[in-house]
Amino acid sequence: MPRSTLAAFETITKDDFLGRKVKVLQPKTGYRAGVDAVLLAASVEAKSGQRVLELGLGVGTASLCLDARVSGLSLTGVELQKNYAELARENADTNKADLTVIQADLTELPSELRQVQFAHVIMNPPYFDRAEGASSDDPGRDIAVGGATDLAEWISVGAKRLLPKGYLTLIQRIERLPEVLGATNVKLGSIIVRPIAPRTGRSPNLFLMQARHSGRAPFRMLPPLVMHEGDAHEGDFESYRSDVKAILRDGAHLGWDA
Amino acid sequence: MPRSTLAAFETITKDDFLGRKVKVLQPKTGYRAGVDAVLLAASVEAKSGQRVLELGLGVGTASLCLDARVSGLSLTGVELQKNYAELARENADTNKADLTVIQADLTELPSELRQVQFAHVIMNPPYFDRAEGASSDDPGRDIAVGGATDLAEWISVGAKRLLPKGYLTLIQRIERLPEVLGATNVKLGSIIVRPIAPRTGRSPNLFLMQARHSGRAPFRMLPPLVMHEGDAHEGDFESYRSDVKAILRDGAHLGWDA
Repeated sequence: MPRSTLAAFETITKDDFLGRKVKVLQPKTGYRAGVDAVLLAASVEAKSGQRVLELGLGVGTASLCLDARVSGLSLTGVELQKNYAELARENADTNKADLTVIQADLTELPSELRQVQFAHVIMNPPYFDRAEGASSDDPGRDIAVGGATDLAEWISVGAKRLLPKGYLTLIQRIERLPEVLGATNVKLGSIIVRPIAPRTGRSPNLFLMQARHSGRAPFRMLPPLVMHEGDAHEGDFESYRSDVKAILRDGAHLGWDA
Repeated sequence: MPRSTLAAFETITKDDFLGRKVKVLQPKTGYRAGVDAVLLAASVEAKSGQRVLELGLGVGTASLCLDARVSGLSLTGVELQKNYAELARENADTNKADLTVIQADLTELPSELRQVQFAHVIMNPPYFDRAEGASSDDPGRDIAVGGATDLAEWISVGAKRLLPKGYLTLIQRIERLPEVLGATNVKLGSIIVRPIAPRTGRSPNLFLMQARHSGRAPFRMLPPLVMHEGDAHEGDFESYRSDVKAILRDGAHLGWDA
């Protein structure tokens, strides 16, 4: 790893995903990839040989988890922040993934990238609108948690990079579902939303969405993906439901049928 | 009943709702109110003494079910079609409800109605966009099932008739969730969506939505209301889950908490 990256983060941790199949270096105190990135990767219906673009790559967790499940992908990731982009390159090497990391603002993609179209665009955009939230002392975390670029722009940029009939897949907080659906009216259709709830009978806090370039199928919603067994939080990794464990530990695919 | 109404429908049936507490005359072959109207009524958080407006009243089933649960409401219903409006007046008499029926196009409300604001506006708008669907031989059913007025217009008219902090409550097919959410950005906020699914683990086919005039709370989604016990359809009224039976037969309230 280049000295500059190490110097920029106080501490780097090495974390395992998909039952040690994916190893990721990430800053201990900034934005840290977790279950969300794994669920996003699990939901992408990519096939060997396809090109996949991730907007807001971070240290690459989602793309690397996808690569671990589907072999032979050609991955590209765009990350605004230099430190994260450098860690993502390091992580791509470690995991032997064909992942090209481009450090750029997604609203100003380099022209060579604007000439490429992808079978899949994936994203885990910042969960909070920075205009509404308090700023933290960690600028890296600030950008990753509450970005300056609005969700409609993320989706618009993603839609433009899709091949006809290509898929955009994202994960986001349920609070922003209206904003996300409102942004998908251009070019995208065949929208499917899967709410993600912590427990049976509890309100979903996140959702996955798949939308298709030029898609014309009606909007669908799936039953919630319920993360944990039981009705109360037991604070234990073992409390994940078996279908969720299969996704998080064994890298199972999370399909788009009910 | 006026002779003209009888003549306009081939057959009229008398149907019971809320365990015989509400009796409704409705055409046998046109649009027929059912479970949807009862779920809508169950979800309205009206209090005694408040004014409630229903857009697209039909024969009055939702308003009459609401009146049966909450006493002392002052109800107004707007219905485009003369035959349905006349049956609604008859049904209001039978059920001793304070329901004023106004026969009008909701896009051209009479001026006296445009000067009144309501604590609640409720609606069960046509489920299909007429432009996309085939037309049936029954013009009454055509209008009720696939109206000429688009959903955004229904919501906009409803929002204008709300008191500040008043609630708009509607039921609609899940396919049209994006359209409904897209139409709620003016004046309305604090939106809550409750998907309605036929069975556990099945995709929701309908949703209830509550939105508040001048509301500023974040969007929320509730867990699905699951209608039937078990995983496969048993085609039996008895298969309703107990919480749903309480709504359909006993007139229980369906609240907006998880």
